Amino acid sequence: MTKPDRPRDLQIIPVSFSDEIRPGDALTDKLLQALKGVRLPLARGDILIVKHKIVSKAEGRLVNLRGIKPSASSRAWARKYKLDARVTELALAESQRVVRRKRGVLITETRHGFICANSGVDVSNVDGGRHALLLPKDSDRSAARIHRELKKRTKLSFPVIITDSFGRPWREGLTEVAIGIAGMEALHDYRRQRDPYGYPLRVSIEAVADELACAAGLVCGKLARTPVCIVRGFRYRRGRGSARDLIRPAATDLFR
Amino acid sequence: MTKPDRPRDLQIIPVSFSDEIRPGDALTDKLLQALKGVRLPLARGDILIVKHKIVSKAEGRLVNLRGIKPSASSRAWARKYKLDARVTELALAESQRVVRRKRGVLITETRHGFICANSGVDVSNVDGGRHALLLPKDSDRSAARIHRELKKRTKLSFPVIITDSFGRPWREGLTEVAIGIAGMEALHDYRRQRDPYGYPLRVSIEAVADELACAAGLVCGKLARTPVCIVRGFRYRRGRGSARDLIRPAATDLFR
Repeated sequence: MTKPDRPRDLQIIPVSFSDEIRPGDALTDKLLQALKGVRLPLARGDILIVKHKIVSKAEGRLVNLRGIKPSASSRAWARKYKLDARVTELALAESQRVVRRKRGVLITETRHGFICANSGVDVSNVDGGRHALLLPKDSDRSAARIHRELKKRTKLSFPVIITDSFGRPWREGLTEVAIGIAGMEALHDYRRQRDPYGYPLRVSIEAVADELACAAGLVCGKLARTPVCIVRGFRYRRGRGSARDLIRPAATDLFR
Repeated sequence: MTKPDRPRDLQIIPVSFSDEIRPGDALTDKLLQALKGVRLPLARGDILIVKHKIVSKAEGRLVNLRGIKPSASSRAWARKYKLDARVTELALAESQRVVRRKRGVLITETRHGFICANSGVDVSNVDGGRHALLLPKDSDRSAARIHRELKKRTKLSFPVIITDSFGRPWREGLTEVAIGIAGMEALHDYRRQRDPYGYPLRVSIEAVADELACAAGLVCGKLARTPVCIVRGFRYRRGRGSARDLIRPAATDLFR
């Protein structure tokens, strides 16, 4: 699997949904329906990349903002930076640790262990501001469910990656990251291998699941109804990869 | 350009080099030569993604490690963590600021403003440990040069992105990032736009140049001689994008 691979083309194929995903929807049914509209049908070796929003919606992770009573502290923070105090309140409720809270930006560690703005709580691309959408409760498990159901229905094993857009320290702009993985390894480790000059590769663990998420991010536009895409031609490694593999353990995190 | 885009397939096509790149090589010649071997010729709208190593090599950014005399402090640090003190010395010389220095990991801010391990100084994929390779002196300028020469030779304007693999705080594994850009915008800003529900997108600046770098990283393997790839089908925005656009200004960096 890790031999000097003859490079091959990669294709990223958008999968458009005509229907809105609603709480309680059978996501795999909707997905198989949407896949019928793809010019190139799903084939062995394909990876499915799914924006978390449709997963969260199907799982009913919507919160009516009218029901949220923000604390005095959330209200003060929101007032200062012209934010919605209810979203701040929800973000804190969804967090297990506040990493930074400065200049209107709230960076938290979610219960999954992800470090991101507002615990991933989002009001855009939901329903115009009435509801907030939370991350899936256990996004690895959500990926595993889709993976398992697709296997049952298609008799083929397709890795599934669920993504969200995260900000980064030091670098501008958001990029997509993997927050749920099933059916493949999240990292490719080249550490025991040698480069073409025979020199051992020292620090060479590639976060392929995040790179796949980014590649999908180029196709799954924020403004188009394309919450899924197929990545074809990538030599993934089968395995029990998890989004947790992509979280740096506290002990090796220089930025705690 | 920023209309709800009808999604289309993205293709990432590897470009293999048979020749080794050496200091003083005319990189664009070598690139045009390598492009002849690609099944699908370069076409209007394509983006070229180039690993910095061939750029740095062509620009002679190789340092003979034998000539480096590490300081006592670099020697002590290297001894403690079983590193090459000469590489540490070079990394410090290439930096303008040490961001973290802990547990054998040296994170610096390079003169370009990039924050990465060892100022991007690398000994793998060079020549088996005799030389270290530095980042291009001005990687935007290097990208601009390739862009300009390709335009002269092909009469078409192809955006060029030069990449390197960087680590990230909080998340495991390396991903490719853009360290030089020419002929396109680095960021896509959706902030003034609305989602399909009419809700304004608040924080939505997408680091497309980094996502393109990641997509290329999936194809340009560390072990295969494929230092370049073509990205086809991405609706980039023409412009004077720069790798500096991807560096978060100190004033908005919560992690300084």
